[in-house]
This record gives sequence, C-alpha cells and structure tokens, in this order.
Amino acid sequence: MATIHPVLLCGGSGTRLWPLSRKSYPKQFAALLGEESLFQASAQRLSGSLFAAPTVVTADAFRFIAAEQLSNSGIRPEALLIEPEGRDTGAAILAATLHVAAQDPEALLLVAPSDHVIPEAQRFRDTVAAAIPTALAGQIVTFGIAPDRPETGYGYLELETALDAGTVAEPLPLAAFVEKPNAARAAAMVADGRHLWNGGLFLFRADVMIAAARVHAPSLLAAVEASLAGATRDLGFCRLDPAIWATAPAISIDYAIMEKADNLSVMPYTGRWSDLGDWAAVWRETEEDGTALSGATTAIDCEGVLLRSEAPGQRVVGIGLQDIVAVAMPDAVLVAHRDRAQDVKAVVASLKKDGARQAETFPRDHRPWGWFESLAMGDRFQVKRIVVHPGAALSLQSHHHRSEHWIVVQGTARVTVNEEVKLVTENQSVYIPLGAVHRMENPGKLPMVLIEVQTGAYLGEDDIVRYEDVYARQ
Amino acid sequence: MATIHPVLLCGGSGTRLWPLSRKSYPKQFAALLGEESLFQASAQRLSGSLFAAPTVVTADAFRFIAAEQLSNSGIRPEALLIEPEGRDTGAAILAATLHVAAQDPEALLLVAPSDHVIPEAQRFRDTVAAAIPTALAGQIVTFGIAPDRPETGYGYLELETALDAGTVAEPLPLAAFVEKPNAARAAAMVADGRHLWNGGLFLFRADVMIAAARVHAPSLLAAVEASLAGATRDLGFCRLDPAIWATAPAISIDYAIMEKADNLSVMPYTGRWSDLGDWAAVWRETEEDGTALSGATTAIDCEGVLLRSEAPGQRVVGIGLQDIVAVAMPDAVLVAHRDRAQDVKAVVASLKKDGARQAETFPRDHRPWGWFESLAMGDRFQVKRIVVHPGAALSLQSHHHRSEHWIVVQGTARVTVNEEVKLVTENQSVYIPLGAVHRMENPGKLPMVLIEVQTGAYLGEDDIVRYEDVYARQ
Repeated sequence: MATIHPVLLCGGSGTRLWPLSRKSYPKQFAALLGEESLFQASAQRLSGSLFAAPTVVTADAFRFIAAEQLSNSGIRPEALLIEPEGRDTGAAILAATLHVAAQDPEALLLVAPSDHVIPEAQRFRDTVAAAIPTALAGQIVTFGIAPDRPETGYGYLELETALDAGTVAEPLPLAAFVEKPNAARAAAMVADGRHLWNGGLFLFRADVMIAAARVHAPSLLAAVEASLAGATRDLGFCRLDPAIWATAPAISIDYAIMEKADNLSVMPYTGRWSDLGDWAAVWRETEEDGTALSGATTAIDCEGVLLRSEAPGQRVVGIGLQDIVAVAMPDAVLVAHRDRAQDVKAVVASLKKDGARQAETFPRDHRPWGWFESLAMGDRFQVKRIVVHPGAALSLQSHHHRSEHWIVVQGTARVTVNEEVKLVTENQSVYIPLGAVHRMENPGKLPMVLIEVQTGAYLGEDDIVRYEDVYARQ
Repeated sequence: MATIHPVLLCGGSGTRLWPLSRKSYPKQFAALLGEESLFQASAQRLSGSLFAAPTVVTADAFRFIAAEQLSNSGIRPEALLIEPEGRDTGAAILAATLHVAAQDPEALLLVAPSDHVIPEAQRFRDTVAAAIPTALAGQIVTFGIAPDRPETGYGYLELETALDAGTVAEPLPLAAFVEKPNAARAAAMVADGRHLWNGGLFLFRADVMIAAARVHAPSLLAAVEASLAGATRDLGFCRLDPAIWATAPAISIDYAIMEKADNLSVMPYTGRWSDLGDWAAVWRETEEDGTALSGATTAIDCEGVLLRSEAPGQRVVGIGLQDIVAVAMPDAVLVAHRDRAQDVKAVVASLKKDGARQAETFPRDHRPWGWFESLAMGDRFQVKRIVVHPGAALSLQSHHHRSEHWIVVQGTARVTVNEEVKLVTENQSVYIPLGAVHRMENPGKLPMVLIEVQTGAYLGEDDIVRYEDVYARQ
C-alpha cells in the first residue's frame, strides 16, 4: 500500500477560545483536551504504518513551539516550513505539496488542520486508507464530516445521492460546494442526508494538485514555487522567501482550486469530529452529564456549564449557573453565556483596540531556548522565572537600562559575564551589571530553572543588544 | 455636648464575600467600595467633634492589620483590645465598656460593627447626636434601620407605633425584638411601618450597660472583668487574659442583655445602610444601571451583573450574562448566580473540608512588619515579594532547611547575617546560608521591597527559629 505524507497546517491563530488561545500561543498548541495539545494529537493520528514523517507548515512565531511539541511526542518531522506571513490555506498547501513533490512527484499527501478533534483515530485512518485508490487514480479527495446538528458556521459538501447508513467503502462524486448556510438551509441539509461538513482535509497525489493549480491558480502556484526556490534553511526549518511569499494571493485552497477542479471526490467520515471552534464546542466535546470541568474547579448546582482553571493554584467555583462558560487564567477570566461563545472573538478584538495586553499575549513567553514568565512587575523592577532546555543557550547580549540578578534554583547554568565564563548551580547567584555582555546556557541534561530579578528605569524586552545568537535572531 | 467613645468591633471573619473576604483577611479590612476598607470608613464615620478616639476590639490575627489601617487613615485609637478567641458580641462589647469605664464610669459609648456601609456619614452622626440625651438619661439606645425590602436574613425591632414620614427627633420606645422572619412575615413587617432592622449599633452610658450586665448576664460580666484585670499590654495592644476569656459564655449582646433589659429605646435611622452580607448586597450598593464593575473588567450585553477583578493585571470579561456575580483573584475565581450569593459560605466550608488553601488563606500574608506574598513555588524553591514598613524589623531568626537570596528592589534594608550588619540598597543582594542567624530591617522612611528566593528541601513558614522579635512572637 502507498505511503501517505501527512501535511499539518498549524500557522493559524484564532481567538475564539480566548483566554486560553491567544495570538502568541494559539489553540492548536494548547492542551485543551487532556495532556496532549491538539497539534500533538493531530500528528499522532497521522502516524503509524500508513504514514511517512509529517511536513509541518507554521508561522515564524510558532516554529519553536511546533518543533518542541513534536520532539516531546517523539515525532521527527520530514520538514518544518515557515510561512513568513499567513497567506491562507492555498499558499500553505501548495508549498507543502511542492516540497514533498521535489523528492517524489507522485507522492500521496494528506492535508489536515492541526486544531481539530477526531477522537477515533483508527477509524479515521481506516477512512483515509479507503480513499487511497481513488487518490492514486488522480482524484482530489476531500473528506466530508457527517453532520450531527444544523451548524451555520461551516461550509457543506453536497453529494449526488443520500448516504446509506453504515460505513462508506470509497469516495463518492461531489455535486457541489455549499457556502455557510442560514439556519433553515442548514436544517434542510442535515435532514436530506446528502450534505456533509467541509472538514478541510484533503488526500491527493502531489502531481495532481500541482496540475490543478497550474490550470486554476497559476499566479498562486508561481509565487509559491519561487518562494520555495528562494527558501533558506535555518536550524532545521525551511523558511520561504518572504518577499516573494508576500506576493502570493491570500486565498483558501477551496476558492483557489477545489471549487474549480473537475476531479474532486468526497470521502464521508461518520465518526466524531469537532473543530473546537468556540467554548460551546469545547463544552460539547468534554461535558459529562451536562457539565465540563477542567483543573481545580467546584461546580454546585450547575447545568450546561463549562468551568476551567488553567493555572496551577487557581480555583474556580461555580454556584447555581446555567449554560455558562467560565475560563480562568492568572491574567484573564472569561465568563460568558454558552450561546454567546462566538462573540468572544469580537470582544478580544475590542480588548486589543483598548491596548489590553491579555488580548494577544500569554503570560508565558515561549522562545527557542525555553520559556519565561513575569512573576512580578514593580516600579523599576521585574521578577521572571526562566526555564532553559538542556543544551540550549540564550543569545550573547547586553542591556542599556537594567542590571540583572540571576539565582539558579534547578539544574546548572553556564554563565558568561564579559570575559568570565563559569558554572552556576542550584542555590548560587550571579550579578549582571548594566552594560555587561552576558549569556546564559544550560550545559546539562535537565531543564535549568533560574529566577531573574531585573532593576532599572526601563525593563522592556526590546532593551537588548544581541552579539551572537544560535537561533539567528536579530 | 457629651463626647462619645466609639467602639469598633472588627474581630469577625465571615466568608460570604469569598474569595475577597477570607478567614485570614476578612471583609471589614477589604477595600470593597472605593479606596478605603469598610473598617477605615467606619472609623472615619465615627470621628470628628462629637467623638473621642475609638476603642477597637479585634482578634489576635487581625491586630496588625487593624493598627496599620488606622495609622494609614491618620486615626490614633484609644485602645486596641485583643480577644484571644471569638466569644460573640456580648463579651466583646462588655470588654470595651469596662475598659472605657475604668477612666470614666459614666462615659457615653457608641458600639458599631466595622463591616457595614453607611454612605451618608453626617446624616448618621446627626442621628447619633439626636439620641444622646436619651442615652445620658439611662436608656440603652439601639439603632433601627428603616427597611427597604422584606429581608429574611436580619432580626427586626418592633416599635409601638408606625414611623411618621421624615426625620425622627429622638429615640422611641421598643415594643419587642423579632427574630429573623419568614418571607411572608418580613413582607408584613415592612408594610406596617412599625418594624426596623436591628443594625447592631448601640449608644449607652458605660455604667448603665454594666448595671444591666450585672443583672442579666452576671457570669459573662465576671469573666470579662477578670479577663480585663489579667490583660497584658503588648506593643500598644491590650491582650485580654486568654484562660479566663475562654470561660466567658459565647453569646450575643442581644441575647445576653438587650432582650432582657427594660431600659431600651430605638433610634430609627432612615438613611442608606447595608451590611454587605453577600455579593448580592455588594451589587445593590455599587450597581449603576444594573451593572457593578470594579477593576479591569469588560461587560458586553450584561444585565444585573457584578464583575470584579481584584488583582492588578487580571482582566475579567463578561459576555451575555444575566444576574451573575463574578469575582476574580489570582488564586480563586467565584462565578455564581446572584440569587445564590448566600450559598458562598457553604461552598467555602466545603472547600475547607477538601483542604483547598484558598478557602481561608489569602495570597498576601500580613505581618506586624509589613506583608509578603509567594510569587512562585517550585520543587525545592520559592520566590517571595516582601514589603517592610519604614522602621519595621523582622525577627532575628534562622532556618534548618533553607538558604535565602535577598535582592532589594526598592528602598534600603539593614541586614544582619550572623555577626555582620550592613546596609543593602536597591539592586544589591545578600545571601543567607542555611543555619545563619539573620534579620531584615527597614531603617528608612519609605517602604522597602525585597525579592526573596528560597532554596531547600522544606520551605514551610514553620521552619523558623526566632531569637528576638520586637513583636513578641514565638
């Protein structure tokens, strides 16, 4: 049987699951259900004997999160493609297709979003396997989710005949794409058995997709080809040429190619599926007896409620609530009626306009070398917790406006201050005077945790002069 | 005109305003409405030309909070009496009465809870003044609040005749005490105009109250007298003798004396009053157009809602809520239907049973010398922010299980480590090795802020050996 090359799209950043999902750390990387992130679960779902290593398409800001999460899941990607900016799914999918085609022009690709939930992984893989012959024969197979409610937020795929009950053996002909419907039309479509949700999942041969693009989206294809030709390799990432990439039309793969191609088939998927598009969807996926609890929560006389505590040590108590969603983080708390879950996006946009930091930024800031968080901010001082991965190093740097005290509380650091290099271990401290050229590394095998106390008149992240950086940052 | 000695009762610790009010920092000390705490507002209300300095009765755990808040309000108390344990209002009021009587047996006292809201301070003072002649003549005057709703949570005072409209010129005879009624009885009482809420406010001559106690509560009086005779003076506090105090019956002043005395009068108060007994009451006192917002909050399409963010940097967003109360702190978030506000108390009791730290303890821990809070807790380390008042000093101490790094980020510290004493100022650090005898003082005129990083196998507050303590703690 042919091997499938999975393509995981994880460059998007929605805000409908704010405060858990933010621009700086969007929902695909959050552990929304259980221990794994949605991205990790998606990568696991598309692994095993049927699949080659995945090609991951992500944004510059998420490249280290994606790499770290794959590594934690024990998955080595075939490639990590970096989109210099988001240009919708058309450009992203073509970039991955061209990248895989360079090694095997007839390779079979499965494109999948990385922020959806498909709990029955084997059932999904069986459905994919059943579509392989059709894809090998030159069809673009799009997967259609059997709807369980008249959802107005999705596009639909129309079949020529109603689905039979039971498992579908092979892809079916597509009659038409249907745009997001109104409520009445959605209800009619769910009733007639001929309509499936467009799940954004595609199986195709690389050469078939490229040929379709050459006919239906030639300028998009040309821009992506040129951008890939000009790509730079950087620490295992493949960074597409930003100047050319910026000229690619921002258009979805559906609009660019699928709705115009004549070789489309639909493979129905009748298992459970959710795009976790808002907190109401998370509630649907996680509720038991009507209540969905996560973290340190207490629910008294609550019905239809989602309560989540997303921080260790933060307890959420609900009393006498009906159809309410409450999500608490140390810096932001959302309380909304479940029917208004879709409005979260608009509220976050308005918070952003008001300059509220919480609109886009997470308390924990992920960097290539690990992460940090601000523990306290005062007049002329800030306290941070800094965690450095084994073998990782921060840039060689200096500051114009602050001095720093470092106290190692776990592991061992190798610290450079001007000419001096020394090992600093648990319960030892170092002082970095204002202006000193310094670097922090973790030479050990365990994470290194350090408390940094900054003092100075200006403590912004942008007061940094970088002299050397293994991650090629400026 | 006679001078009134105010007695402020602030030893209680309710949990119905959890998470803002907790056993370790109850509601009277919280800034529930505006900048001042309820205790500070109460002390201010009972100051001015009519009043002597207040006598404050509080619990051991709150003595430094009470003293600090009075000092911040520029009020020097006549005395700070410490109840070794809570024995209800009977013992507390008699202790204050005996204490004032020792200097002036016929002194006029006004006893007031310190966690109520009486926004029209001058109007209240005028009402008190109008009751003075009656109190001087030997009556115990209890203040009755004109009810604006059929509240079932309060006791009522029954008058012989219905109140006339307008201001009442002098106290009226009391017909009877009425226990907390059911809803129908409450509605009838509010309608007949002859019933007032029992507000727990009393004006009386010390000798009159003592004489009443001698008749109606002789064993209570004897225990309080002996406890006061055995009191110890300690840093400006008067600490009642704990062993004798423990023998005093725990009984309210109403049950012990008021309901038995024959010299009672009622002074009606027709201004606004609230005991802020639960979050629904806080909503009533603070709502504008139905919505009560405090701190960094955003309310979209909310009706009848209270949203409070009690931590700097924590934003609370409400969407599409009706009659919901949401109060957020870094370690605890309450979301409740407003009609269920009374149930908060029971929930906190159940949290306590489950061992949840948030049930009773506040993130910020107040001490005689200032306060501290834990910023981060890890495996074998803890980071604290410590704030020391000008002129204050921590005890001379050592630890068996931890070393400490101190970094001064504001002000100047005088630090003792074994034999050495030195000044440490902003951006300087000190290391306290395990076992070293050490002390931290603030010799300056401004608050001193210090970041402490502890490392060790055990970091509990009880790993402390105290050698000297200006606050007489063991």
